[in-house]
Amino acid sequence: MIVILKHEARQEQIDRLREFFAKMGLGIHMSEGENATIMGLIGDTSRVDADLIATLDAVDAVRRIQEPYKQANRKFHPDDSVIDCGAGVKLGGGAFQLIAGPCSVESEEQIVAVAKAVKAAGASLLRGGAFKPRTSPYAFQGLHEEGLRLLKVARQETGMPIVTEIMDAAHLPLFEDVDVIQVGARNMQNFELLKELGHIRKPILLKRGLANTISELLMSAEYIMAGGNEDIILCERGIRTFETATRNTLDLAAVPVLHEKTHLPVVIDPSHATGVNRLVRPMALAAAACGADGLMIEVHNDPKHALCDGAQSLTPEEFAEVAKQVLAVRAVITA
Amino acid sequence: MIVILKHEARQEQIDRLREFFAKMGLGIHMSEGENATIMGLIGDTSRVDADLIATLDAVDAVRRIQEPYKQANRKFHPDDSVIDCGAGVKLGGGAFQLIAGPCSVESEEQIVAVAKAVKAAGASLLRGGAFKPRTSPYAFQGLHEEGLRLLKVARQETGMPIVTEIMDAAHLPLFEDVDVIQVGARNMQNFELLKELGHIRKPILLKRGLANTISELLMSAEYIMAGGNEDIILCERGIRTFETATRNTLDLAAVPVLHEKTHLPVVIDPSHATGVNRLVRPMALAAAACGADGLMIEVHNDPKHALCDGAQSLTPEEFAEVAKQVLAVRAVITA
Amino acid sequence: MIVILKHEARQEQIDRLREFFAKMGLGIHMSEGENATIMGLIGDTSRVDADLIATLDAVDAVRRIQEPYKQANRKFHPDDSVIDCGAGVKLGGGAFQLIAGPCSVESEEQIVAVAKAVKAAGASLLRGGAFKPRTSPYAFQGLHEEGLRLLKVARQETGMPIVTEIMDAAHLPLFEDVDVIQVGARNMQNFELLKELGHIRKPILLKRGLANTISELLMSAEYIMAGGNEDIILCERGIRTFETATRNTLDLAAVPVLHEKTHLPVVIDPSHATGVNRLVRPMALAAAACGADGLMIEVHNDPKHALCDGAQSLTPEEFAEVAKQVLAVRAVITA
Amino acid sequence: MIVILKHEARQEQIDRLREFFAKMGLGIHMSEGENATIMGLIGDTSRVDADLIATLDAVDAVRRIQEPYKQANRKFHPDDSVIDCGAGVKLGGGAFQLIAGPCSVESEEQIVAVAKAVKAAGASLLRGGAFKPRTSPYAFQGLHEEGLRLLKVARQETGMPIVTEIMDAAHLPLFEDVDVIQVGARNMQNFELLKELGHIRKPILLKRGLANTISELLMSAEYIMAGGNEDIILCERGIRTFETATRNTLDLAAVPVLHEKTHLPVVIDPSHATGVNRLVRPMALAAAACGADGLMIEVHNDPKHALCDGAQSLTPEEFAEVAKQVLAVRAVITA
Repeated sequence: MIVILKHEARQEQIDRLREFFAKMGLGIHMSEGENATIMGLIGDTSRVDADLIATLDAVDAVRRIQEPYKQANRKFHPDDSVIDCGAGVKLGGGAFQLIAGPCSVESEEQIVAVAKAVKAAGASLLRGGAFKPRTSPYAFQGLHEEGLRLLKVARQETGMPIVTEIMDAAHLPLFEDVDVIQVGARNMQNFELLKELGHIRKPILLKRGLANTISELLMSAEYIMAGGNEDIILCERGIRTFETATRNTLDLAAVPVLHEKTHLPVVIDPSHATGVNRLVRPMALAAAACGADGLMIEVHNDPKHALCDGAQSLTPEEFAEVAKQVLAVRAVITA
Repeated sequence: MIVILKHEARQEQIDRLREFFAKMGLGIHMSEGENATIMGLIGDTSRVDADLIATLDAVDAVRRIQEPYKQANRKFHPDDSVIDCGAGVKLGGGAFQLIAGPCSVESEEQIVAVAKAVKAAGASLLRGGAFKPRTSPYAFQGLHEEGLRLLKVARQETGMPIVTEIMDAAHLPLFEDVDVIQVGARNMQNFELLKELGHIRKPILLKRGLANTISELLMSAEYIMAGGNEDIILCERGIRTFETATRNTLDLAAVPVLHEKTHLPVVIDPSHATGVNRLVRPMALAAAACGADGLMIEVHNDPKHALCDGAQSLTPEEFAEVAKQVLAVRAVITA
Repeated sequence: MIVILKHEARQEQIDRLREFFAKMGLGIHMSEGENATIMGLIGDTSRVDADLIATLDAVDAVRRIQEPYKQANRKFHPDDSVIDCGAGVKLGGGAFQLIAGPCSVESEEQIVAVAKAVKAAGASLLRGGAFKPRTSPYAFQGLHEEGLRLLKVARQETGMPIVTEIMDAAHLPLFEDVDVIQVGARNMQNFELLKELGHIRKPILLKRGLANTISELLMSAEYIMAGGNEDIILCERGIRTFETATRNTLDLAAVPVLHEKTHLPVVIDPSHATGVNRLVRPMALAAAACGADGLMIEVHNDPKHALCDGAQSLTPEEFAEVAKQVLAVRAVITA
Repeated sequence: MIVILKHEARQEQIDRLREFFAKMGLGIHMSEGENATIMGLIGDTSRVDADLIATLDAVDAVRRIQEPYKQANRKFHPDDSVIDCGAGVKLGGGAFQLIAGPCSVESEEQIVAVAKAVKAAGASLLRGGAFKPRTSPYAFQGLHEEGLRLLKVARQETGMPIVTEIMDAAHLPLFEDVDVIQVGARNMQNFELLKELGHIRKPILLKRGLANTISELLMSAEYIMAGGNEDIILCERGIRTFETATRNTLDLAAVPVLHEKTHLPVVIDPSHATGVNRLVRPMALAAAACGADGLMIEVHNDPKHALCDGAQSLTPEEFAEVAKQVLAVRAVITA
């Protein structure tokens, strides 16, 4: 870490800073220039709060040389992580997977039908919400335990591992038999939840928050990894910007940027990012083209009678077509 | 709620939609125009998910006439809410309060000294963090139970009610003797936490998330109120934008906008919004000038020996000056 | 256009509004509901300033049924526009083109060498800056007339039509022999320039502004088209968001969204969007996968001796590889 | 300027960089650390394109010690600039001014009436649009030359200097007798216009672009100053964010931040920032409280018959009240 001191920094301020860093066990290398004095910190700076240091009166700027994340950092773990999602399904390191299923689990009939359909179309993991984060307290919040039970029925019927969202650490006992636990965008910085997930041995699908940077996403992964759980799948699902033509702005450049910075796999959720089913196919293809390790797509089973046919979900037939093209694009880029 | 249908909407789609709304107990009033058909919904539409409806194939746009929040809505509660924070300290409805204290509780000596200093300078509530949300798992996370204990010592010494942040519903038993519980920006949409806070009888200081709209802030307040707890203080502390000259962009227009939409009081946190102590005074004055019901300001006690003297905290002397000017500005606008 | 009046709108306010719309030659259809009165406007509402109407005291919200752009609107022009860029090069309506060349024209040797290299690799249009918009007045601003002359030399040598940026309407006479005139992101709402470009007969490549919505991009196209020039190529090159890991956030969903809303072709500039050459390939592939009608890519000729080898430009060899993969991806999605 | 090289930078890359900087006449000071090599540049680095350097393969980061703006920089011009706006009206350096008038000049009767009213209420400069930037080509674009003529009539009648917007350098001859020329937000980076304004001797009111940083605003001021025109008034009028409750988000922290970085005065436009007249008063008071050097407020004369009474304009009576409170707030902060 490099701390650039202001020209007008007083000696006592500099001394206090030196003492502070020395107490943290860091070596210090001073370099005096014409316009600024630079303090180079040597050692493990991951515990240093760069934001705090940057706001000190004597400090002009702080620059990390070493990223603040260690276990998620590709520098210290050059090979791609491959996540074992259960039932022999691997994700990452060249293994590309389609995760598909309905927004919410509604009934046994629904979830089993969707599961069979998406499996036939090429999906290898089944998604479905049992606990639903809803902006309004008056909106349907999911089937909870019953939803988890139905997901397991669908797994039994199809052999597909299941992915479903947790909303509170207190619910963890209910997720014991879930294959991959999802952390939603709104909980990406629910640090108490992240800490608890660090103590279990189960893959975590961690979604990027709507207003969180790529660096913050990696720090949240680091929270889980610091607890001992290294099986993390990152998920980009759109960020919040001024544009309102789509629900969110899908930041696809995050895929190659994350692949540089971390060994963890990256999947894209084009359904939540765009909020419109017509946009799912082009964005799924784009995600495959820029190297995503997987896709998470909403599929609904009975569009004729369901309310949501026009919303962000695809029909199984549409999903099958998307899956076919996605794999063809993937064949091009891995050729 | 008004649903504007697309010109090309098919009759079967419209029928399905009518059936769906009818099942929710809503009356429907159709109005056919040259370019569009409009469906007016009559009744309690707060359970309708407008975002979902807007993405349906047949739908061009959805417009709420009634806001989705009811208990937080000024329409149904025209008078300002006045929140009793304990020890006779009221906030809102003309009662303006200064909430001050250190970022983190560090020691008994520190918290008691700061508490006495800010009380002398005009603060009526003491803030201090015991559980600290930190981006890095390796950073100091607060003194936890011990921090809460020290806050109560400071309350005993000064008579000031205490405000401190909760990070997980499971910690609620520890907060039983806290006067005002703070929900941080990162937990504004931690819906499980909000639900639990609805079941207690204690004022909640709810901070706006970095990327959350004013409407979402009110929906999060509604989550708590729907559970029965009506004592909520809203807090604007900066939103995330492209500008990097300040840590966040303080959205002061949120104060008069919130005062129109809700009866709940609004306080401003200029310390976290700007991240720089030199900017706290002007932003505190601006907040008072546009009608905020209170301010939440970081004050540190011993700048000579503390590392943080240059960061976002004020010294007690600086705080006393700010407090004096703030009250003078408030006198102008309430004259 | 639908104007939703507030419940508390006074009759005199409503009457004034009716009179105002009547004067504009619009028919009015009133529909009174329980919570709101709705005013439907019939006729050509493209001259109505919806933003202004929305801020009137009596008005709750305004909703356009008809988009404010007419000539750019796919509703009134269902077939894709195909833009003739000169020398037989067509772009749009299934004709996909690669536009490549250096950021700035530096010398005859440079521009001719790059032109030959990118042509050999599959590019059909040559780009190169003669007038450069620079944030700093002290930075190199381009070779100006001499740059335009050198571009024409390169065109002569290769037969490729040239694309280059204009920064002021007063420079138009210099651009007479240019094939495609580019309007940069910073000038997307330089309305006086747009009006002038409406009076010429030459294709315009119009870049989206850093903070402009898709709808505003189409309104700027409409400015040019309203003057009579219908040959417009839209270009997405990244928008400004809170994320700093890339220079801008490339909004690829704009491609399918624009294809729904307009008949004009859409190209993507992955070089400026990301600012880093390692990210150009994945983003170029993603753009092709989601249906872009072309790509605009920076290519530099002599990386060994050039300063910029590591920046956003590709070498001709890298470009050739990208071009090959891009065409393979395109083959998949058009199969 | 400090260039932090990557650990893996090759010697030939470093040598090329050294050569490049040496050619620009800069001294170089190398400092090798454990994790990084740092290159300190000595001399006038304002011509160095930091963004470009930062994207080089060998470079980890670039940090300016010296800001890229010189003439606008408070470091080299510690005293506040005071701008002479004509007729003895000074703005900046303690002199606070109210600029008021209608959005568009509509008629002699209108502009003269408004001018008299706002003068009586305390305004010292008259604003009014003759050239109007409009998103739609079909919307009213202003009275142009006739509008400028009417503004001068109003000046004659009241003695108030006039402020009005220019949209193209080619219109400059028409602005010869205007007192203060406004550059609108959309033209903040119309560099050709800025250059032309550098060659005249007339105060420029430069509005911040919707998506431009404070640093970019200062670089645009530098464009004008580099040409020799030092009389610039900066204006914050809201930035574009995800929040839609207000038209833009007024970034009031820009006032104290700009006062640190530059000697140029800063005015706030609460009318355009919020788009709603009810929000003008609180935001005007907040702007005064945080130290703005002036306010620019829209005032309309005949609300009874005008369409816009509910929009962002105040009536003269409302303006008079706002002016009174604004001056009282200003008295508090300058006491």
